[in-house]
Amino acid sequence: MTSTPPQSTASRTELRALVRSQLQALLDQNNLQGAKTLLVPVPPVDIAEAISELPEEQRAIAFRLLSKDEAIEVFEYLDSDIQQDLIAEFKRQEFLDVVDRMSPDDRARLFDELPAKIVRRLLDQLSPEERNATALLLGYKPDTAGRIMTPEYVSLRESWTIEQALEQLRRLANDRETIYYLYVIDDGRYLRGVLSLKDLVLASPDQRIGDVMSRDIISVRTDTDQEEVARIIQRYDFLAVPVVDIEGRLVGIITVDDILDVVQQETTEDIYTLGGVQAGEESYFRTNLFTVARKRVVWLLILLVTNTGTSAVIQSQEDLLEQVVALAAFIPLLIDTGGNVGAQSSTVVIRGLNTDEVEMGRSLRIIQREAVAGLLLGIMLAIVVTLWAFLLQRNWGVAMSVGISLLAISLLASVAGSALPFLFKALKFDPALMSAPFITTVVDVLGVLIYLLVARWILQL
Amino acid sequence: MTSTPPQSTASRTELRALVRSQLQALLDQNNLQGAKTLLVPVPPVDIAEAISELPEEQRAIAFRLLSKDEAIEVFEYLDSDIQQDLIAEFKRQEFLDVVDRMSPDDRARLFDELPAKIVRRLLDQLSPEERNATALLLGYKPDTAGRIMTPEYVSLRESWTIEQALEQLRRLANDRETIYYLYVIDDGRYLRGVLSLKDLVLASPDQRIGDVMSRDIISVRTDTDQEEVARIIQRYDFLAVPVVDIEGRLVGIITVDDILDVVQQETTEDIYTLGGVQAGEESYFRTNLFTVARKRVVWLLILLVTNTGTSAVIQSQEDLLEQVVALAAFIPLLIDTGGNVGAQSSTVVIRGLNTDEVEMGRSLRIIQREAVAGLLLGIMLAIVVTLWAFLLQRNWGVAMSVGISLLAISLLASVAGSALPFLFKALKFDPALMSAPFITTVVDVLGVLIYLLVARWILQL
Repeated sequence: MTSTPPQSTASRTELRALVRSQLQALLDQNNLQGAKTLLVPVPPVDIAEAISELPEEQRAIAFRLLSKDEAIEVFEYLDSDIQQDLIAEFKRQEFLDVVDRMSPDDRARLFDELPAKIVRRLLDQLSPEERNATALLLGYKPDTAGRIMTPEYVSLRESWTIEQALEQLRRLANDRETIYYLYVIDDGRYLRGVLSLKDLVLASPDQRIGDVMSRDIISVRTDTDQEEVARIIQRYDFLAVPVVDIEGRLVGIITVDDILDVVQQETTEDIYTLGGVQAGEESYFRTNLFTVARKRVVWLLILLVTNTGTSAVIQSQEDLLEQVVALAAFIPLLIDTGGNVGAQSSTVVIRGLNTDEVEMGRSLRIIQREAVAGLLLGIMLAIVVTLWAFLLQRNWGVAMSVGISLLAISLLASVAGSALPFLFKALKFDPALMSAPFITTVVDVLGVLIYLLVARWILQL
Repeated sequence: MTSTPPQSTASRTELRALVRSQLQALLDQNNLQGAKTLLVPVPPVDIAEAISELPEEQRAIAFRLLSKDEAIEVFEYLDSDIQQDLIAEFKRQEFLDVVDRMSPDDRARLFDELPAKIVRRLLDQLSPEERNATALLLGYKPDTAGRIMTPEYVSLRESWTIEQALEQLRRLANDRETIYYLYVIDDGRYLRGVLSLKDLVLASPDQRIGDVMSRDIISVRTDTDQEEVARIIQRYDFLAVPVVDIEGRLVGIITVDDILDVVQQETTEDIYTLGGVQAGEESYFRTNLFTVARKRVVWLLILLVTNTGTSAVIQSQEDLLEQVVALAAFIPLLIDTGGNVGAQSSTVVIRGLNTDEVEMGRSLRIIQREAVAGLLLGIMLAIVVTLWAFLLQRNWGVAMSVGISLLAISLLASVAGSALPFLFKALKFDPALMSAPFITTVVDVLGVLIYLLVARWILQL
């Protein structure tokens, strides 16, 4: 039978844009049946995106077109401000159909962003079971395993057979976050083993769970940092990891799809921190402008203050500059280059510390290596800059001062850039946060001082 | 029955270190049985780490203690230089037991890093089936879906029953990368539907695959960039995504655990690029020092060259500096602060572009917003710096020049910092790569020029 290829697919981005515009058009024409049909093959996350782009008055209408099960999934993907708007319009039954049936970790994430008064009111409207599940999660600190886990896992007993386990699965599967890993607990809810769905399917129906499961379990605790959870899931290629409380009792699971979101969020924080931006709870682009400016100026003021040292240093050497004004021309060149060398060294060390690629024990070896690199780079750059300085000023004294200073600055910058992150990590500070102002200070202030002292020494010869 | 909690677990990092030191100790005593027992409960990735830390002569010994199946998994986790060392020691049978039975994408990754001569020799030693699978993957460009996919998936037919599908699964499961998603193809290998293992387990045995599967499939093409694949898997919370060739025929799958590794690799590249470091194929810390210096100096020279503009500008205004040497003191302060403002703006815009949080269409609105932020920040910083300058120099003319310049520089930096990434993305350049030198040039060169012209204007009043 000759088979025909399926329709060629436009890029997904184009498809998503198409859905958005068509949905809007159909709603404008009040063609609800058409809109409902349009959304049938669309994945929940894309429906959520389309609904978010609608004018406020149309969102609830579009949302009500969805089947109950789909509505819950779509709701979980919406941003929390849009979730709040919709909840405000829900009648009691709609609230129970959606918010009560949401997965507890997504609900906790929503409640996290609501004012406490509203959270209390909403908690009261939930069914007792869901209220407890949510209160449990909200009781944990943000960004820990306890907060991002879900209590909706499948648990089995060692004494069951494969057949009994499959029956349990069929009974529960629709309400469970994931059934790809099944956790084996005892009467006290202590974790005894783990079994994958694959193992279950491949085993014979009368085998005992206890004989098929693996007893080597890797778990995390409710207070484990979410970045650490992400590292574990990534390292061991897990689809999910169990979360236990202080006594070792199973309380929830964290699945790999939630971890991908955590990884992206943590990466954005890391990148923002390296760039000197304080990450807030919400997206930078949706935060009020005055709030944004207020947060950014704090960091800028700190850097400004550390930089005032350069002006004090230069002023103290003013007599030298009065004599040889030409020296001033190369100050930006020197400290910028020093800054770039320092940034290269600190970037690789900080990233290495964050990804566990670099261990504290190897710090001396790495700093040594960076020092040698700084020296090599300094020599290459010094040659170029000496020639440039001479070309500009026709003064060997100035040119030599610039060249020698650049060599010294390059060495200084690479040592500071590699050593300071280790120092801050050892002092339990965040290396990415602390390093920038200190490296800048060291390179700029000492760099300018070295430059002017070297120049003074050379030009007096 | 009172249950006892399992042993309290030390942190995983401590456990891993313990395994490493114990393995070394046992091998030193030639206690092979003890070493074998030690490794039994240890996950493959941790065994690989332990073996990597052993002296070279002990690695093959440790490796041969492993069972065949475990050996393959451990081998896949080793770094490629250690894989090469071991291959050099393998007898033919060991080679067939391990390298031939590796998952094709891991083998392709290994062969990628070997010299072509050795690759040809190794390809010849593979079984024909595996040789073809590897050659297929190596035929695709690096960092595309085709290169990182595995051809080892489970395919079903629409006409089969659930029962038949389960039988197929039991037959193939041990050789397949993942069986959690099952792909339904027709005789021409065109993708017709997808079915999860969960769906399979929950359905009744006599249902037809075609009635249970979902026909709404999201797939990627062999030439799709791996970053795009990661975005899709993350967006739709998939455990795997199918890869089709140009005609729409299924050729392989990419699983979420491989994607986590891709995400980490790509993030390191992004962070390195923002810090001015060219990421090589290998880890920065294991690359030869001269190679490292050579790569870094290229970037530093580019930045140096763009920065020479500042010295030319300052020299052109030398007469002014001769009159008011005090002005020189504030040059570093001004351009550093400008640089920090620009870095903040460009960091958030570049990260936003990379994570699809920011769309090109919103560029004008974002640049506008950043301009206003730059103005607000500039006002706050200018007040502080004017006071500082006056404190240092007792000269209102100089102080006012510094303050007004900082305001202008702050505005300039935030506009440049937000606009240039958009411009480069529109020109199909990598915004993270191109922005730094251009933003630095704009802020430093124009900043110094603005400063000296403003000073000239104010001091002549």
